Amino acid sequence: MSQQLPDSVPPDLFAARADAIASAARELALAGWTPATSSNFSMRIDDGHAAITISGRDKGRLTRDDIMLVDMQGRAVGTDARPSAETALHTQVYRHWPEAQAVLHTHSRTQSVASRLYANAGVVHLQGWELQKAITGHTTHESVLEIPVFPNIQHMPELVARVDAWLSAGKPLAAYLIDGHGIYTWGRDMAEARRHLEALEFLLGCELDLRRLNA
Amino acid sequence: MSQQLPDSVPPDLFAARADAIASAARELALAGWTPATSSNFSMRIDDGHAAITISGRDKGRLTRDDIMLVDMQGRAVGTDARPSAETALHTQVYRHWPEAQAVLHTHSRTQSVASRLYANAGVVHLQGWELQKAITGHTTHESVLEIPVFPNIQHMPELVARVDAWLSAGKPLAAYLIDGHGIYTWGRDMAEARRHLEALEFLLGCELDLRRLNA
Amino acid sequence: MSQQLPDSVPPDLFAARADAIASAARELALAGWTPATSSNFSMRIDDGHAAITISGRDKGRLTRDDIMLVDMQGRAVGTDARPSAETALHTQVYRHWPEAQAVLHTHSRTQSVASRLYANAGVVHLQGWELQKAITGHTTHESVLEIPVFPNIQHMPELVARVDAWLSAGKPLAAYLIDGHGIYTWGRDMAEARRHLEALEFLLGCELDLRRLNA
Amino acid sequence: MSQQLPDSVPPDLFAARADAIASAARELALAGWTPATSSNFSMRIDDGHAAITISGRDKGRLTRDDIMLVDMQGRAVGTDARPSAETALHTQVYRHWPEAQAVLHTHSRTQSVASRLYANAGVVHLQGWELQKAITGHTTHESVLEIPVFPNIQHMPELVARVDAWLSAGKPLAAYLIDGHGIYTWGRDMAEARRHLEALEFLLGCELDLRRLNA
Repeated sequence: MSQQLPDSVPPDLFAARADAIASAARELALAGWTPATSSNFSMRIDDGHAAITISGRDKGRLTRDDIMLVDMQGRAVGTDARPSAETALHTQVYRHWPEAQAVLHTHSRTQSVASRLYANAGVVHLQGWELQKAITGHTTHESVLEIPVFPNIQHMPELVARVDAWLSAGKPLAAYLIDGHGIYTWGRDMAEARRHLEALEFLLGCELDLRRLNA
Repeated sequence: MSQQLPDSVPPDLFAARADAIASAARELALAGWTPATSSNFSMRIDDGHAAITISGRDKGRLTRDDIMLVDMQGRAVGTDARPSAETALHTQVYRHWPEAQAVLHTHSRTQSVASRLYANAGVVHLQGWELQKAITGHTTHESVLEIPVFPNIQHMPELVARVDAWLSAGKPLAAYLIDGHGIYTWGRDMAEARRHLEALEFLLGCELDLRRLNA
Repeated sequence: MSQQLPDSVPPDLFAARADAIASAARELALAGWTPATSSNFSMRIDDGHAAITISGRDKGRLTRDDIMLVDMQGRAVGTDARPSAETALHTQVYRHWPEAQAVLHTHSRTQSVASRLYANAGVVHLQGWELQKAITGHTTHESVLEIPVFPNIQHMPELVARVDAWLSAGKPLAAYLIDGHGIYTWGRDMAEARRHLEALEFLLGCELDLRRLNA
Repeated sequence: MSQQLPDSVPPDLFAARADAIASAARELALAGWTPATSSNFSMRIDDGHAAITISGRDKGRLTRDDIMLVDMQGRAVGTDARPSAETALHTQVYRHWPEAQAVLHTHSRTQSVASRLYANAGVVHLQGWELQKAITGHTTHESVLEIPVFPNIQHMPELVARVDAWLSAGKPLAAYLIDGHGIYTWGRDMAEARRHLEALEFLLGCELDLRRLNA
């Protein structure tokens, strides 16, 4: 492993986070949510650093050596490896929510299709589903869970600004879609991030089914 | 295991039921019918007690320690663990049908979508499917199998009353859906409950397919 | 095993056929084509006997002991076990085609839905699919492969007569559907029967997809 | 193994390619993309030879012995085994692109249905999907990725000529569909060919979903 760690990052902590990311990635790949080396995953190390998947690796075969260190501006730290272009979207989450410990970005067929279908509306409204309660902070299926859909802007600072604008408007944000692309969600630990991802995949799939059936 | 058993409950019996529940839960989780820690499962212990899954656990990793004892009013017995809010729906089944030994509540995409689609009608009519015969007491595909859809009422006594009203009207009941939520079914042993659940998932999926294709 | 074999049936032969049936059944159950103990499978033993699955067993857990001997009228031989009600449909195949060695009846969602959708027409026409060539005797995708759909008649002699009528009309028959139920197909060995079943499941699924998409 | 190798082909090289093909075939069969012994796979050996799957074998159980040597006109070399009728489509790729090392032809339900649906148009246009970038040479989701659909001509030289005509028109070609049949794609190594195949299956599936939902 060519990853050099700064003195402030305990090797055991980095290794534990890297293993947790690799393990989650392998399970999500098995579910078919990371086609063709897409998707990326990260965990917070401390206030200044995160561990994140190196760009372009097969997510079904990920090991500790496929994870690298970045700072909170998304720059590589102590390695020549190239972080994913979308690293800035991960570090934005860690900067905005001090309690966020894990960020997952996947790319299932349901997520991709939903993102295209709701791109013009700019948002998916989820309401009336018991499983909305799986999203932390949502205690009733009667409330509306809003998942914004942002355009697939290739210039990351502009996409980061779109997410910031949503937050500045004071709207709650548990996850977002990118048009033609996939989903971002996060949690206070890997288990919560996984539960959010699993619930959102399920809810988006239900919405698409209902739309097909009510047509 | 912090579960204390009353003298009337043999530890071997409780352990056997807990293992059977955990094993069924892991298999149903693998099928994708328990997304994001949803769903709950129980078995009768005796006329006064049932074993049931503790709330909020990952159903794919369930062990004997994730099962607790409740009385037939759904109150925890000999443990500080919190039973699922929906425990009252399980104990209602055991009170009404002395021969019922296992109750399964799952939450597949098909079950959730069907519950929304038929919520206004309040019932799904199944007719003409050979697999209706897999439901005990249904000997011909020519009869109509009615699966009621109840609203997703959060106040359990009210939901229990809705189920009672259906039964008081003298209608047969092998299973019911809750709107936006999932299915409840049961059996004279775990194998029968599993067969009912598998048949109902299949039949609801067929109905949705037919509806899509006849559109 | 309570199965007594007549002198004319070598125990090794029966055991080999029983194992082959149980193995195929487990694999087809894993694919989800035998929900809730449905489906049945057989192999020819000799001109007078066939080995067939005992009624009501879980096809995912089948062993040699779940297979029984029947004569070519579908009556149990040397056992008290109850053959499936549909045994007569298996023995009809063995009587009509001396080269048939294996008969498979499954019950996938695609098969059940297709049978309902084409019940009024009484037949599914397959044309233009390369995979039609997987059916022995079909050498081009340009020909039409006809799969009749018979009503789900519970009185077996009447259903047998329907199949006979199709054959008497001189039409080729590689498989048939029963309305609301499932498919029957066969082959000169288990591998060919499996290939036919796999190809037909695929082709019916493609037809349903095309119908949905052209709607 | 009855395969005799010419002096110019190192046995180790042939064995390594045969193993790589068999391994890929087993994984693609597991995904359900090679129903009923369909599909074929090859790798380049040198400028004059390729290793390719022998016709009619079950792709889920493929071993090194199911792979044969052909020359770049698609004729068997050093073996009596029969190459697939479609071998000419593989060798055409190796002749046209000197850097191509692996060719994959599969037959998923999505591929078959898409080929029928777009047969009249003669082409599938993919645009706006992030995963288009998984196809080498495609650096933005904003460009259009064209996948031609050729008729299912049984006379191979005519089909080869159709592909040549597309190339002669100067259009880029990363993959093509054959009507009612399946897909062909390739890569500079097996990993790239697999990534292309996985991305195209995903993208075709998304297109079909969108079409269903926008109907």
